[in-house]
Amino acid sequence: MSEPGTRGGAQVHPFDDAIALAPRGGGTYTGATSPAYANMVGPYGGITAATLLEGVERHPERIGTPVSLTVNYAGPVGDGEFTVTARPARTNRSTQHWSVELTQDGVVVTTATAVYARRRDTWESTEAAMPDVPPPGDVLVSAMPDYVQWAKNYEMRYLEGPVPSLEGAGESADSTTTLWVRDAPARPLDFPGLTSLCDVFYPRVFLRRGQAMPAGTISLTVYFHADADALAAQGDRPVLARARANRFGRGYFDQSAFLWGTDGALLATTHQLVYFKG
Amino acid sequence: MSEPGTRGGAQVHPFDDAIALAPRGGGTYTGATSPAYANMVGPYGGITAATLLEGVERHPERIGTPVSLTVNYAGPVGDGEFTVTARPARTNRSTQHWSVELTQDGVVVTTATAVYARRRDTWESTEAAMPDVPPPGDVLVSAMPDYVQWAKNYEMRYLEGPVPSLEGAGESADSTTTLWVRDAPARPLDFPGLTSLCDVFYPRVFLRRGQAMPAGTISLTVYFHADADALAAQGDRPVLARARANRFGRGYFDQSAFLWGTDGALLATTHQLVYFKG
Repeated sequence: MSEPGTRGGAQVHPFDDAIALAPRGGGTYTGATSPAYANMVGPYGGITAATLLEGVERHPERIGTPVSLTVNYAGPVGDGEFTVTARPARTNRSTQHWSVELTQDGVVVTTATAVYARRRDTWESTEAAMPDVPPPGDVLVSAMPDYVQWAKNYEMRYLEGPVPSLEGAGESADSTTTLWVRDAPARPLDFPGLTSLCDVFYPRVFLRRGQAMPAGTISLTVYFHADADALAAQGDRPVLARARANRFGRGYFDQSAFLWGTDGALLATTHQLVYFKG
Repeated sequence: MSEPGTRGGAQVHPFDDAIALAPRGGGTYTGATSPAYANMVGPYGGITAATLLEGVERHPERIGTPVSLTVNYAGPVGDGEFTVTARPARTNRSTQHWSVELTQDGVVVTTATAVYARRRDTWESTEAAMPDVPPPGDVLVSAMPDYVQWAKNYEMRYLEGPVPSLEGAGESADSTTTLWVRDAPARPLDFPGLTSLCDVFYPRVFLRRGQAMPAGTISLTVYFHADADALAAQGDRPVLARARANRFGRGYFDQSAFLWGTDGALLATTHQLVYFKG
């Protein structure tokens, strides 16, 4: 056994420690929640999504790279050990469809589906251009409130729509947040890292209402535009992330977001449905 | 046995005929493809998504109404009979998480996950306002090319981004399509009907490139903003539907779309990842 945060004597990034899975055969793995990525109730949703993707990434039958991922948060992940099972539901010539589940004591906690593909060169075009913003070095790093444990693993530089102060910042007419963000300490971007970043936005309803309230992601979808080359080109530099909600009502709101690389490449688009009470 | 298109002597809408499922016990149903909703390869993706949702709608353990649905098209649905299996993966106090599969001869053809919820009154706000467009009666109905069988079940009135002509309409710098659309013949909107409408846009790459090419939806997500009251208020009037892609590259593009009711209520937001070759 190695100490937490080390493997074979080498220093392990807290992110890699959090998504670490031990293979138990047949597409089944065991892992454990990491206190470093704790949220209000259970872990940060992004780390859970990354862990489910990791179950596919490590699977011996995997082909290609992820193009689509949907994670459904069925219940809170309890502190401690969990089991991840990744099953290739269907493998075609160039695409592969996955069903993934996270269970604790035999109870389903999180479900996911993913599509992997062997990508090939085609015509390309990006319509969602990166907005014109100051470079990361020109924007101050700010912290979330100290009790938001998971946020300490991200270096966040808000350009608009920062976290409303606890005293109540007043309502806002627009739910847009834009920030430069990367892992802290810096970590070269890979598919689990990008997946986790897709959930980095605090709930849009906080911004609209100017206050925190109970809220949590129910379903998260990621479309991966980046391939391995795009991730390598990005490295560990900050990603520009922008999120906005479309509709709040009857207990739920949706959110759509974009993640661009430092040089303007669209790395991912991501959408989620969020429960809220207030 | 009744004749196709009739049930107990009464005329059945082709949509209801297409999504009809016969319960076989244990959350399993059998259905059959409908020639009326045929697409290039297999049925129209919207009718498959609606059929999978119907498997949950008809399940005796279902609670509430849909808030989220993701459908993964793993392979083409062959003409003829299929089996739909809907399994409640987890039921909480006010939410329920579903796993759904469509199989043919024991092979997985389509997978889906859905979240249902008992909705409750909360603060509400719509940020994605309906664009200012002429009313449906002021816009001409146009048809897709005659060989697109499924499209004959929809009355489409294009406001921008119509289907490029077969002769080649030239490239377009923007992938936006906006149309008024409803079932033909008219049919009161319900959750399967709204689900099917979410896939009504022809592939965005056709518009950008000014020509048709092989393309197909790989993954479709629907966030339902409408509850039963909103659907009843909409009735069988046209829905305003607008779609746009964010990024095309290395064999795939994504699309985000909005569906508003005639009076401006946001009924659904929907996203998809699409395979293309060209």
